[in-house]
Amino acid sequence: MESADESARRLAEYETLLEFGVQLASTLDLGRVLALALQKAEELCQAESSSIWELDDESGELFFRVVRGRAAPGIQSLRVPLGRGIVGDVARTGRAEVVDDAAADPRWGGDPDASFTTRGVLTVPLIARGRVVGVLQMLNSVDGAGFDADDLRRMELFAGPLAAAVANARLYAEQKRLFLEMVTTLAEAIERRDPYTGGHVRRVVTYAVLLGQELGLGAEQLEELRLAAILHDVGKIAVPDQILRKPARLEAEETRVMERHTVDGAEMVARIRSMRPLLAGIRSHHERPDGKGYPDGLTDPDLPTVPRIIAVADTFDAMTTDRPYRRALAPAAAAAEIARGAGTQFCPRAAAAFGRLFARGAFTLEEGERLLVSLSASIPRE
Amino acid sequence: MESADESARRLAEYETLLEFGVQLASTLDLGRVLALALQKAEELCQAESSSIWELDDESGELFFRVVRGRAAPGIQSLRVPLGRGIVGDVARTGRAEVVDDAAADPRWGGDPDASFTTRGVLTVPLIARGRVVGVLQMLNSVDGAGFDADDLRRMELFAGPLAAAVANARLYAEQKRLFLEMVTTLAEAIERRDPYTGGHVRRVVTYAVLLGQELGLGAEQLEELRLAAILHDVGKIAVPDQILRKPARLEAEETRVMERHTVDGAEMVARIRSMRPLLAGIRSHHERPDGKGYPDGLTDPDLPTVPRIIAVADTFDAMTTDRPYRRALAPAAAAAEIARGAGTQFCPRAAAAFGRLFARGAFTLEEGERLLVSLSASIPRE
Repeated sequence: MESADESARRLAEYETLLEFGVQLASTLDLGRVLALALQKAEELCQAESSSIWELDDESGELFFRVVRGRAAPGIQSLRVPLGRGIVGDVARTGRAEVVDDAAADPRWGGDPDASFTTRGVLTVPLIARGRVVGVLQMLNSVDGAGFDADDLRRMELFAGPLAAAVANARLYAEQKRLFLEMVTTLAEAIERRDPYTGGHVRRVVTYAVLLGQELGLGAEQLEELRLAAILHDVGKIAVPDQILRKPARLEAEETRVMERHTVDGAEMVARIRSMRPLLAGIRSHHERPDGKGYPDGLTDPDLPTVPRIIAVADTFDAMTTDRPYRRALAPAAAAAEIARGAGTQFCPRAAAAFGRLFARGAFTLEEGERLLVSLSASIPRE
Repeated sequence: MESADESARRLAEYETLLEFGVQLASTLDLGRVLALALQKAEELCQAESSSIWELDDESGELFFRVVRGRAAPGIQSLRVPLGRGIVGDVARTGRAEVVDDAAADPRWGGDPDASFTTRGVLTVPLIARGRVVGVLQMLNSVDGAGFDADDLRRMELFAGPLAAAVANARLYAEQKRLFLEMVTTLAEAIERRDPYTGGHVRRVVTYAVLLGQELGLGAEQLEELRLAAILHDVGKIAVPDQILRKPARLEAEETRVMERHTVDGAEMVARIRSMRPLLAGIRSHHERPDGKGYPDGLTDPDLPTVPRIIAVADTFDAMTTDRPYRRALAPAAAAAEIARGAGTQFCPRAAAAFGRLFARGAFTLEEGERLLVSLSASIPRE
């Protein structure tokens, strides 16, 4: 029989774990799940450093999701094949273990960085729905006494809700990624009917998020901007070939039909309730602060941020690619046009953000794609 | 200080709850979460009947998600406004409570069904991310002694992981629903270029899932079928207006261009890795078991199930709607055509499934839409 002290300690521990399980399960934001988890795990085991590895099902490699504590800088970019080293072994067998002296373990590959010496290692597999999704690892107990069976038991209990949260967050992120990819694919197919605009959708999205970030948009607004930029021209599906593909200037009536793509695109998307926040970005991306835009002739105070941004991204891309009736402008010439249009054709704040990015060489597709990747990796919610 | 017995009992209880939290968190399938939860809750509290109510944010009403036990038949379709009755009051205040004698509580509206008399009621709010998402309610303790403070405490602990799981499953289901709606909207916009096929996409989807269910497809395959049916004609985006809108029979070369929509559609979607299982459904929906179809002239043994089904759904809809060069056939005449084509134009099993559904009057858009709603409500995952 356990002593009363022991029981009381364990009850308190279980209560902490229960509470933590609820916290973990309360979010599908993987970043938040993991940060919470490591902080709590270090507290529970008194470890010097801790990490969560995720198993990449495609490559069969483990990679660091998060690393905390002193060992972090040296190891962040490590990738370890399943079965290799202690961490790979635990991921393969699905069995937790404590190693007291890493240097004496034949599986240990050595510390990659001389500034941190690993002594004790506690490694627990993260298993969700019967499959290993990753590994939780604690390095060096703070008091130097090493990890014991109690630490192991604690971390095994801890791994349950953590693994479930990791698996759920991954599934959710995959579903979101699939959504963006599918919508992009269909929007690009719609775009390809217009023979002069290959790749326009993707470039406008990329430029738009760069501008959005420079303007300090939050995660949710950036996501909205991204989706509105993907969809900004879908209304062109309703423009007949003879107008869309006309290799010359449009007549007045043809222009009227062409300009309807803003209204048609917004109407298409309006049928989906949760997409309503995107409507302004689609309908108003050809408006101008001076009121000379279309379809509504809005003026500066009535223009939301998202269409202001898309207008700059859209125009910059149109100017810097060849069109049937004119050659592409050099980027610097296009940048000068945007500066000239600030306050009349373009929102002054969006034009200024563009100017800053352009001046420091950061308004490039490469920069934008890096940003898009990082946005997809940490899809936030709430 | 608690007695040793008490401590041991509580430790065991916490262990059960911890384990249950992991089970709950391991799925985004709401149906499974809820079934698991009620079973466990009745065990823990020894209740005669139990239910989980969900709060519909739009209407501000609580409705039953699941009901278990004897009270179920009478109350399944109840909807209760926030603030009304015991359940509505707990959802509004966010405070759990035990009512020993429901009949004596002024908020109690009475049992809707004479076959079950409610005595004791234990009601706990489900709170996730600071918001009430629903209510867990237990009716009548089995031993007749009523619910006590221990039951209340237990259910409050229990409500944490349950609320988190409900909120996550809802978020995930919403994301999936959004995906389907968005893809449908874009596919319909692409379809609308063809002036003769209004509503075709939605009808083919509806017919296809009816056939899929009749053929005994599992949940995952039904989902695949549904998505492939939505996308089956997206390749038509690459067909020029003059062919797509030609109000007469197509010339040989025009037919060749038109038939390319199968290949083009599959190529578009092929760029998204997780959509690869859909490719056959899109590329091969104009193949025939006798090898006279396109684009690949596949014969019966090489034809997967999904395109076989889409072929029947697609042809039935084409036959029963007006086209420029002929009037719509009556459903019975179209059904006879499909029966005649079994084994040559159509897969014999798909044609037979169609025949069975049609004969019992179940091959209707109304039946199909009911099925689609139920598929969306219980989106399974593994």
